[in-house]
Amino acid sequence: MRVSSAEAASAPRAPGSRFLEEIREQPDALLRLLAGAAEFAHVASEIRARGATTIRMVGHGSSDNAASYGVYAFGLMPGWTSLRDSISLTVYYGAELDMSGCTALALSQSGRTPDVVEYARQAKRRGAYVVAFTNDPSSELAREADAVLALQAGPERAVAATKTYTNQVAALGLLAAHAAEEGGAFADDIRATADTMRTFIDSVETRIANVAIPFAYAGRMFVVGRGAEFATAREIALKLLETCRIAAEPLTATDLAHGPVAALDSLFPVWAIASDDATLPAVVEAVERAREAGATIIASGSAADAILRADYVLPSPAATSPLLAPLLSIVPGQLFASALARARGLDPDAPRGLSKVTLAR
Amino acid sequence: MRVSSAEAASAPRAPGSRFLEEIREQPDALLRLLAGAAEFAHVASEIRARGATTIRMVGHGSSDNAASYGVYAFGLMPGWTSLRDSISLTVYYGAELDMSGCTALALSQSGRTPDVVEYARQAKRRGAYVVAFTNDPSSELAREADAVLALQAGPERAVAATKTYTNQVAALGLLAAHAAEEGGAFADDIRATADTMRTFIDSVETRIANVAIPFAYAGRMFVVGRGAEFATAREIALKLLETCRIAAEPLTATDLAHGPVAALDSLFPVWAIASDDATLPAVVEAVERAREAGATIIASGSAADAILRADYVLPSPAATSPLLAPLLSIVPGQLFASALARARGLDPDAPRGLSKVTLAR
Repeated sequence: MRVSSAEAASAPRAPGSRFLEEIREQPDALLRLLAGAAEFAHVASEIRARGATTIRMVGHGSSDNAASYGVYAFGLMPGWTSLRDSISLTVYYGAELDMSGCTALALSQSGRTPDVVEYARQAKRRGAYVVAFTNDPSSELAREADAVLALQAGPERAVAATKTYTNQVAALGLLAAHAAEEGGAFADDIRATADTMRTFIDSVETRIANVAIPFAYAGRMFVVGRGAEFATAREIALKLLETCRIAAEPLTATDLAHGPVAALDSLFPVWAIASDDATLPAVVEAVERAREAGATIIASGSAADAILRADYVLPSPAATSPLLAPLLSIVPGQLFASALARARGLDPDAPRGLSKVTLAR
Repeated sequence: MRVSSAEAASAPRAPGSRFLEEIREQPDALLRLLAGAAEFAHVASEIRARGATTIRMVGHGSSDNAASYGVYAFGLMPGWTSLRDSISLTVYYGAELDMSGCTALALSQSGRTPDVVEYARQAKRRGAYVVAFTNDPSSELAREADAVLALQAGPERAVAATKTYTNQVAALGLLAAHAAEEGGAFADDIRATADTMRTFIDSVETRIANVAIPFAYAGRMFVVGRGAEFATAREIALKLLETCRIAAEPLTATDLAHGPVAALDSLFPVWAIASDDATLPAVVEAVERAREAGATIIASGSAADAILRADYVLPSPAATSPLLAPLLSIVPGQLFASALARARGLDPDAPRGLSKVTLAR
């Protein structure tokens, strides 16, 4: 069942104007998130006090993409095991999992995604400490949870998420940093990143059309990232699917070599996110293999220049830490999707068949 | 770095003959696996004795797809938390994860995948009990591990894996069943499933060309499954990428609704795996949405008939339990890939740019 949002359908507007406005609004949304940082410190201390240090994350779509980032944030800062949990196992199969010693982070923009709400209910019953990450602190999900971390992205009116995704990434990072008792410094880093992001959005926006328009007829694409940037690869691929109707698949650098490289040719472009961290050699090597297969290469990320002979290069500014880089490296992907959708005559504010709140099982 | 297998390149043969032979060999490969069942009982009792009941699985390509199945096998039988672990976190970022209380299952057909070997080494150092799942018990991976479970798939000469994947699925199920002290019954069920599979392969093989040939010009596809069948969806998508050069993306039924459905039209087919278990209503609902978007629908799985108005129906026989169904529901996908590759003039034994042992980072 789907609910169409009356809000999203009202008022005349240029196609894609909301999507673009919300991309531009992301630095402000990050600053709003930081205003609630005290609650993150509180939840982190609750998790430690309860010894609930196995982190189970659930969400769909962009929320699940942000959870991919969470695996690295919790693994690298407090050194905790975290996983994108199977919703089906608990909600549909009723598996008898013991979730004591676990914190469940339930991510939903609206707080209304049915199986995420049901998962939260079940996880609590199975002993988990349940934390809702949502834009709506009065939602059903928030009511089911032991604690609520408000995403503070503000009303998101384009159907394809942008600022909610970046605030989810920042929120997961901030909670993980507080868990490692580095929350203050991480918040400062997010603030600095928001400033960098503002300038970066302006600069990419002015030149993205020249990169996007050559792909007006592309039907498929791989988006390659590894480590903390795998979340970015997943989110860029989802934006391309939703707004541009491109069959875009996210792959880790190494997975590309384990089969999918065989599908590449000059009509199958590859978007690579190369960040200046320990995974860079694996990403460079994978992209070289894609180039040999004839694929057109778009290189992005803070180490985009390390990818030699790329057809298009969209470098990100350096981030304060590798764990902040995904907040910047998502930007060219969002703006590319925005420009390409318009070049294809599509309206990224309201993709066919989607609505803002997904009530699908 | 890649190593080309001399074995795979020698001897004249019809294109795709090895791939097809290995698909047909799967029931025998399952029986060979069962011959080593005592070792599975031993490893399961070691895991229990050590209290190492958080299961971390790693692998690339088909091995990682099998790990998706493992999440359900361990969750449903012994009720243990299991996860497809991030290799990057440990191997590239050197995260200080405490893996005491964990078993690491390292999956690699050849036992030579570099970052899987390195992960095994690191996991042991961090306190995990490490078990290698490989066809080569004398491989580097086997030497790094505390225990080895031989996959017994026998030499696999087609580059795209088939019998190794099904034996990995069966091996993960068998270990999980032993962990729940139901190993004997599960082995009997695998034996019965191998018999069913033999007849099923014959029957699908005779009629698959009529289903595959209409897709000779398809460029993209979604493969939808949920729960234990998400592994099947991932593996079918990978076979289509590798052997047919189709941009095939696996999606859970609910993820389809969270964005990707917007990309569908009549030239974007959807393969759905509908099994007769608790996730069926979610799968049926998702496929109905895809059909409304104009997608051509291929319905498979033991509950294929529950998908109304599908364009093509490839039902599986009922399995003894939902956890055995994936051994049967993968078969039509493998045979479809085999028939479609040949219709497209491709050789599924030796996809361009791939070799049997992937040494890519």
